[in-house]
Amino acid sequence: MVEKVKKRSQKTGLPPGTLVHIGTEKVGKSRIRILDYDEQGVREKNDALLNECVPFRDTDSVTWIDIEGLQDIKLLDSLGSCYGLHPLILEDILNTDQRPKSDDMESYIYIVLKMLDVDPASLEIISEQVSIVFGRNYVISLQEGREGDLFEPLRERIRSGRGRIRKMGPDYLAYSLLDTIIDHYFLILEKFAERIESLEEHLVNDPKPEILHEIHRMKREMIFLRKSAWPLRELIYGLEKSDSDLIRPATKIFLRDIYDHAVHIIDSIETYREMLSSMLDIYLSSVSNRMNQVMKVLTIIATIFMPLTFLAGVYGMNFKYMPEIGWRWGYPLVLLIMFGVAGVMIYLFKKKNWL
Amino acid sequence: MVEKVKKRSQKTGLPPGTLVHIGTEKVGKSRIRILDYDEQGVREKNDALLNECVPFRDTDSVTWIDIEGLQDIKLLDSLGSCYGLHPLILEDILNTDQRPKSDDMESYIYIVLKMLDVDPASLEIISEQVSIVFGRNYVISLQEGREGDLFEPLRERIRSGRGRIRKMGPDYLAYSLLDTIIDHYFLILEKFAERIESLEEHLVNDPKPEILHEIHRMKREMIFLRKSAWPLRELIYGLEKSDSDLIRPATKIFLRDIYDHAVHIIDSIETYREMLSSMLDIYLSSVSNRMNQVMKVLTIIATIFMPLTFLAGVYGMNFKYMPEIGWRWGYPLVLLIMFGVAGVMIYLFKKKNWL
Amino acid sequence: MVEKVKKRSQKTGLPPGTLVHIGTEKVGKSRIRILDYDEQGVREKNDALLNECVPFRDTDSVTWIDIEGLQDIKLLDSLGSCYGLHPLILEDILNTDQRPKSDDMESYIYIVLKMLDVDPASLEIISEQVSIVFGRNYVISLQEGREGDLFEPLRERIRSGRGRIRKMGPDYLAYSLLDTIIDHYFLILEKFAERIESLEEHLVNDPKPEILHEIHRMKREMIFLRKSAWPLRELIYGLEKSDSDLIRPATKIFLRDIYDHAVHIIDSIETYREMLSSMLDIYLSSVSNRMNQVMKVLTIIATIFMPLTFLAGVYGMNFKYMPEIGWRWGYPLVLLIMFGVAGVMIYLFKKKNWL
Amino acid sequence: MVEKVKKRSQKTGLPPGTLVHIGTEKVGKSRIRILDYDEQGVREKNDALLNECVPFRDTDSVTWIDIEGLQDIKLLDSLGSCYGLHPLILEDILNTDQRPKSDDMESYIYIVLKMLDVDPASLEIISEQVSIVFGRNYVISLQEGREGDLFEPLRERIRSGRGRIRKMGPDYLAYSLLDTIIDHYFLILEKFAERIESLEEHLVNDPKPEILHEIHRMKREMIFLRKSAWPLRELIYGLEKSDSDLIRPATKIFLRDIYDHAVHIIDSIETYREMLSSMLDIYLSSVSNRMNQVMKVLTIIATIFMPLTFLAGVYGMNFKYMPEIGWRWGYPLVLLIMFGVAGVMIYLFKKKNWL
Amino acid sequence: MVEKVKKRSQKTGLPPGTLVHIGTEKVGKSRIRILDYDEQGVREKNDALLNECVPFRDTDSVTWIDIEGLQDIKLLDSLGSCYGLHPLILEDILNTDQRPKSDDMESYIYIVLKMLDVDPASLEIISEQVSIVFGRNYVISLQEGREGDLFEPLRERIRSGRGRIRKMGPDYLAYSLLDTIIDHYFLILEKFAERIESLEEHLVNDPKPEILHEIHRMKREMIFLRKSAWPLRELIYGLEKSDSDLIRPATKIFLRDIYDHAVHIIDSIETYREMLSSMLDIYLSSVSNRMNQVMKVLTIIATIFMPLTFLAGVYGMNFKYMPEIGWRWGYPLVLLIMFGVAGVMIYLFKKKNWL
Repeated sequence: MVEKVKKRSQKTGLPPGTLVHIGTEKVGKSRIRILDYDEQGVREKNDALLNECVPFRDTDSVTWIDIEGLQDIKLLDSLGSCYGLHPLILEDILNTDQRPKSDDMESYIYIVLKMLDVDPASLEIISEQVSIVFGRNYVISLQEGREGDLFEPLRERIRSGRGRIRKMGPDYLAYSLLDTIIDHYFLILEKFAERIESLEEHLVNDPKPEILHEIHRMKREMIFLRKSAWPLRELIYGLEKSDSDLIRPATKIFLRDIYDHAVHIIDSIETYREMLSSMLDIYLSSVSNRMNQVMKVLTIIATIFMPLTFLAGVYGMNFKYMPEIGWRWGYPLVLLIMFGVAGVMIYLFKKKNWL
Repeated sequence: MVEKVKKRSQKTGLPPGTLVHIGTEKVGKSRIRILDYDEQGVREKNDALLNECVPFRDTDSVTWIDIEGLQDIKLLDSLGSCYGLHPLILEDILNTDQRPKSDDMESYIYIVLKMLDVDPASLEIISEQVSIVFGRNYVISLQEGREGDLFEPLRERIRSGRGRIRKMGPDYLAYSLLDTIIDHYFLILEKFAERIESLEEHLVNDPKPEILHEIHRMKREMIFLRKSAWPLRELIYGLEKSDSDLIRPATKIFLRDIYDHAVHIIDSIETYREMLSSMLDIYLSSVSNRMNQVMKVLTIIATIFMPLTFLAGVYGMNFKYMPEIGWRWGYPLVLLIMFGVAGVMIYLFKKKNWL
Repeated sequence: MVEKVKKRSQKTGLPPGTLVHIGTEKVGKSRIRILDYDEQGVREKNDALLNECVPFRDTDSVTWIDIEGLQDIKLLDSLGSCYGLHPLILEDILNTDQRPKSDDMESYIYIVLKMLDVDPASLEIISEQVSIVFGRNYVISLQEGREGDLFEPLRERIRSGRGRIRKMGPDYLAYSLLDTIIDHYFLILEKFAERIESLEEHLVNDPKPEILHEIHRMKREMIFLRKSAWPLRELIYGLEKSDSDLIRPATKIFLRDIYDHAVHIIDSIETYREMLSSMLDIYLSSVSNRMNQVMKVLTIIATIFMPLTFLAGVYGMNFKYMPEIGWRWGYPLVLLIMFGVAGVMIYLFKKKNWL
Repeated sequence: MVEKVKKRSQKTGLPPGTLVHIGTEKVGKSRIRILDYDEQGVREKNDALLNECVPFRDTDSVTWIDIEGLQDIKLLDSLGSCYGLHPLILEDILNTDQRPKSDDMESYIYIVLKMLDVDPASLEIISEQVSIVFGRNYVISLQEGREGDLFEPLRERIRSGRGRIRKMGPDYLAYSLLDTIIDHYFLILEKFAERIESLEEHLVNDPKPEILHEIHRMKREMIFLRKSAWPLRELIYGLEKSDSDLIRPATKIFLRDIYDHAVHIIDSIETYREMLSSMLDIYLSSVSNRMNQVMKVLTIIATIFMPLTFLAGVYGMNFKYMPEIGWRWGYPLVLLIMFGVAGVMIYLFKKKNWL
Repeated sequence: MVEKVKKRSQKTGLPPGTLVHIGTEKVGKSRIRILDYDEQGVREKNDALLNECVPFRDTDSVTWIDIEGLQDIKLLDSLGSCYGLHPLILEDILNTDQRPKSDDMESYIYIVLKMLDVDPASLEIISEQVSIVFGRNYVISLQEGREGDLFEPLRERIRSGRGRIRKMGPDYLAYSLLDTIIDHYFLILEKFAERIESLEEHLVNDPKPEILHEIHRMKREMIFLRKSAWPLRELIYGLEKSDSDLIRPATKIFLRDIYDHAVHIIDSIETYREMLSSMLDIYLSSVSNRMNQVMKVLTIIATIFMPLTFLAGVYGMNFKYMPEIGWRWGYPLVLLIMFGVAGVMIYLFKKKNWL
């Protein structure tokens, strides 16, 4: 989950606004989906060509152009000139290592953020950058091109006309996209909560080294998650407080709602971070405790048997003149002394609370 | 106490404002209690039906509708249309994983926060989300539906007409609900203070591993408590500074008072957190100290007996030509040397302050 | 020094503004002292009755009513109605677990803070809550009722007419009370500085476990001190920036002075906290170092004597056919080998810098 | 990478504005490069003399004077009087231990920051201070004089007329210099990401002491990087929000873009710092775990063999009257007992999960 | 370097504005030096009497009165009445335990800060409080009275008329004093950088316990340095943003310059603090690593020789019926077995990477 800034260095030296795709290269073509709707009806085109967007540009209906895959730089270039996007915005769209932010460009608003999902197999977080551009009567969403996206339920809602979405403008559609993406952050957090809970059980019952690596892995994912979620607060706040007339007052109530969600997500991330720190402390303490236990066993054994072995050694010496050797009760006496020494030792350990 | 975000993911993809109950599902019906009062008298209905609220809607008396249990979505839906609540507010009420906040919706004010109590048996913190909606002449409080609530003394006060509550408006009732809930946070903190005090005694006298787990448990509860208490400050500040005419100036003095309480609670939580951290440090140091002690004992024993055992071993060798073996005073001499070595060792340990 | 929130829970459920004394119960009566002064002279009454205050209420001279002991709720009640104090202020006065703050109530200003002293016997911090209410021509100070207070030199100054106090108004008297209390915080910090210095010497020369507990105790006192001192900054800042005409401009210069003091105190507390943390780190490192030392001794002893003992053991075996046993120089040879092994070991330890 | 403040002390006592070169002394001459351009064409002079700049001063074309090497104080002095630079600005240029900042001096703007590069051989960060002064029609960039710089691609862009640079003013050129420098910070961060990744693999597979030193080295470089990058945010923010008419609105959009870059860089640095901290924790825990493992082995061996050796010692005693010695099955019996003891021990360890 | 608040407690109870000297008492007289200058010339008097200042009070030339030693309270008192200083300012001057700050008193400005130097013998930081009061045509600097000061080069500059100082007003002189003092902070930081560098080398090559105490000492000095430097930022910012007409606009550019210096100093202090923390972590880890190494040696020795010694012990038993004893090849066989066991052990350790 180390964020890869790698390909960014390819760009150093190029003039600002030069379009270079930064990110994992994808093969194949960019895919365009057009969804044009108003209160009366819906017009949909999958695998459309860019020039099919043009007729919708000057109608009053809301046009949602969803582009998957950023490898086709020419496509983006002509999209940019068609909708009058600033070269820097196009550059930001292509650079998939963006910090989440929103830019008010007067005739349109640009939003970029991370869409997170959990890989069902490896349980790792999958991150995909989504750019959203919306103007008076259109919304353009641009995804990196990972297989599948989170917007299918939203499309379904538009098609069926459920909810208020067909009655609202492109600002509401942009909000809905944000809402869908942010709702998925909660899903990630739920998975975390489950993993933390299961980890805590193991922590108490059986602190193994694997737990350590699991904590480390979760910490790293938390750092990544936080980096993605933290700027959301500012992003949405900027939109809500914007005086652009592209965002209608009715939509602002909804933005305030996802602002609360973003704050909640950040709170939860901080909470989990603290819990992970606390768990690491506990793990370390448990290891210390165990070591202490091991040391005690060793010390008890050594303290009991070393004097005894010494005593046995003394009477194993081969001196000619050792009176005790010849005594009738020498052997039992020595055994008795040995038991006595061991007994005293055990008594002392009991008193010191080591046993 | 890991906050469960679990069921939230059921909602992803649904249009905003869709009413889905998020939280532990309860069986049985939602219970409605109506308490309508003015300076002259009190009208009370337990287990009321929703349409029994309607007549009170347009009177000047204050109507307190208390709903326990959020499972009946239809009920909430008709409550919403009766009092003109925004769908997003209804959604927030149903979602029991809300960050405490207050929303000024012009014709009414929405407050959501956590009501905390201590389970008398397990001493664990019980958390229940409470939503408060108040307008010109009504207060609606909505609880998750845990058995019992904290508001009984407040009801008693209204019935008996003690204090100024019957003379004040719904804003004062809303304040009183907040006050009751926040006062209980102090109770939680008192329990914490007691547990910390008892823990500290054990820490000094007998640092057992159980203390570690107790500290961990308390840390987690503190994290949870903090997450619940921290937003209260902002919440009450928002109410106090609100320019809504639903909150009368006379009530604002009282809000300032609970604002001070909230700040005090947050201060105390931070204090306890620091004390727990300090205690963990001390615990770890104590464990290190003990280990050191154990190691010293082991080293002393080994350092004394290993040379002696070696000496005994030397004279246990079976060489034919060992002159000392035949000496008359060989044995006592060796014993003397042994005592000497042991004495020197003990002297050295005394000097090194190990004994 | 765990702040006791204990009795606060007795209040949950009571209407706000109900007067209940929260704190350690004292027996005996509350004591009233009246000191009325203007530039011309001083009128003083010890052990006064409340109605003796009344005549002073409407004169132009400054009246200082000092009340020790808060157990007499009726007294406070009538004081409140005499001077027109808000019920919430009276409630705050009685609750001795208040966060330091100042409230501007228009016709009077309310200040509450902690008066700290050091117990000469146990060297523990003694804390007593002091409430100060001052209006156009009076100052009321309310103490919890601990034996003795810090204000005697101030009274003496009023009586003797030293300094400018007799020429100034009640705001200057209130300032003087604050100044006296805050000056005592420096005294506490001086004691801390001394203890830290003596602790540091021991830390370097002889790191015993007792130091650990002393550090812990000081950390806890620091946490408590900080909780008392931190809000002072805000409190005095609020007074200084207040636009109430109860605080004259001439007094504000003096308030700015104690504002600097408060900031200085907070700085020093943070400094001591950091020093204590640093000392704990050093202590822990010292313990680790010592353990390392102990382990080295053990390892050296074991590494030297284990091979030797084994060698002695070999020639203590009773095999019939052991040629070395019969050799003329077997014994001295073995002894020589033993010395050789020991020598090599010691040489290796020297090279590894263990000796 | 310890920032060397060393030579700064040479200056104490000199009047402010005295020009003294602070930094690693370079031999040889300062090198001047002039690049004068407008939309029509480019005029370039390498190894120019200062008086060759003068003719360009009053034309409308943009003049970029790039100076490498600050050792020639006279040169700077005459540059200062030619372009009317304040003595303090000249002093700041000469002092290569500056905190990055921007100063608006009305007729020109002064920017100072660190240009970072990675030494291809040692992989260490190379830092060089760059001062940028720009006015109505000129940009002066001053480098410490390290071999080579990052601006060659920019010069190429001006020469070839690619991009919009030839059409824009000196503010855009200054922005381009900043952009080039800041883009290189991403390169540094990429190298870090790679090193962290490779370190993490080793951390999991084979935690050696070298990793510790590598973490320490990276931490130090991070501290240095952060000190260089943190003020960039403020620097660019100051430029963007400046009301100087030297910065045209068209350029401000570009400044906002590198402002986002700076924030992104700072975010990444904080992320890497946290990851390094987390890695150090994991390393320490791994070491503890390993120690625990070692201790267990020792304890198991000692616990099994000490009792056995004692037993062997007992029957090696030379007492005359030891009945067992004479028994026919004494020896096998003792061996059996020995195996029994060892078996019980191993069983206990298995049960305790030590094996 | 524990800041001594000691004598401050002598003042508790005295009226505010009472002049009591707080600090290390000095014997001997306070020394007054007068330096009066304008663009035309300089008049200088060493060891002057206070009434010699009076004639300069009403001229237009700048008078710099430098007082060393604060023990002469009467002197300060008459100085105060001569220049109309507020009693609280005099009190602050005498109290040498002040937090650095600046106070705008309308007819004059008061600045107090710490002048730091390094003792050439012990390398310890020497701190002396300096108060600066400047008005329309005078600057009064007051030092605690430590032997020597940092202002000699400044005096020389005034005498010789170098730089712009003779042409500027008292505000520029005050700035020059600040500049001189703050420049010396860099010198302290340089010494720190050197010590840290030399410490780091030892840390890597030979982590001895002395390093620990050196780190502790440096940490404490850092805490002290930080306490002195942190308020400088606010102090200079206050002067720069002041709307007092005592500070001319031309001087404000210079103040902005030392503001940057102060920020730089604070940045560096934070950097060193972090590096010290990182070094402590590394030290602790090294100690753990070493302990681990020691433990491994012990374990290897014990694990090899304990089984062998046991084996030797077995054949040292005196049983009558031990068939192996009589075997012809018993002894070599046992030796072989012993070598085998040792070999297997060593092989296992190699495999576990312990050797």
